[in-house]
Amino acid sequence: MTAPCLRILGIDPGSVVTGYGIVDTDGRRSTHVDSGCIRVKGDALPARLGHILTAVAELVDRHQPQVMAIEQVFVSRNAASALKLGQARGAAICAAVQGGVSVAEYAPRAIKQALVGTGAADKTQMQHMVTMILGLAARPAADAADALAVALCHAHTQATLSRLPAGYARRTR
Amino acid sequence: MTAPCLRILGIDPGSVVTGYGIVDTDGRRSTHVDSGCIRVKGDALPARLGHILTAVAELVDRHQPQVMAIEQVFVSRNAASALKLGQARGAAICAAVQGGVSVAEYAPRAIKQALVGTGAADKTQMQHMVTMILGLAARPAADAADALAVALCHAHTQATLSRLPAGYARRTR
Repeated sequence: MTAPCLRILGIDPGSVVTGYGIVDTDGRRSTHVDSGCIRVKGDALPARLGHILTAVAELVDRHQPQVMAIEQVFVSRNAASALKLGQARGAAICAAVQGGVSVAEYAPRAIKQALVGTGAADKTQMQHMVTMILGLAARPAADAADALAVALCHAHTQATLSRLPAGYARRTR
Repeated sequence: MTAPCLRILGIDPGSVVTGYGIVDTDGRRSTHVDSGCIRVKGDALPARLGHILTAVAELVDRHQPQVMAIEQVFVSRNAASALKLGQARGAAICAAVQGGVSVAEYAPRAIKQALVGTGAADKTQMQHMVTMILGLAARPAADAADALAVALCHAHTQATLSRLPAGYARRTR
């Protein structure tokens, strides 16, 4: 991959499973660096949030991404799950802020649009596209695939915003 | 105040204003240490959550509480505000976890019961009781009063659980 390379950490936060996916992009092609799931156990909320915070901080520390990409949430679910999601999301974003990593949010429709070319793609289609784009040997787990998808959306959006390889802007919103 | 003394940080998290209140208790009487509001400005979510995280971490650092007390949320509001509250709550709890401070959650009804003796007290009554119990010269702002209330609830609950001054258990749930 030619320099300059942008490293993106995609995060799909959840109160039980938080998916992560790290990709490098040169603005034309993206490569898979790492992906997986952070599984949180136990009943104690502080320990659960602490687990997410620490695990994401470790990913930041190990892989040194320039940006975290995360799905914007337009809540359609009930308020109780929105609160749980919010807490997990808050912990993941705090890890990025503490690590000096900027955060970019993308609407679900924008992520689908960037990957599949239509905002109405289903989950299996998205998993398939992530596998294809990154040339993976196997389809990643659903939460890891979602995280890779938002990372790839950022890569694609940045590439569209700036066709000049040197033009990567660090985006904080 | 006689030793051993327990220092409690009460937090009333919110996406715009996070109230805080710190009290010392010997199991019989509680005294006011500090209280106020963390006001978050700007539109950028990461910066907003980072502000809450840093501000609560500074309170922990400055006052060295043994426990953070926070209101349990049984969401009755809509999902969008639940998500925002969850994110703010996540950031505040992360600050406690990182500072090695245990976290105790209390239901709104338990807080009212502990302070006013009935679970049906209104906000003005609660502000009044906080002012009275702590012997404050002036009624604290609403968010600070809520934070002091949950801190006092913890003080009261701990005192009830263990009448022996040495019996304070660090409570993590």
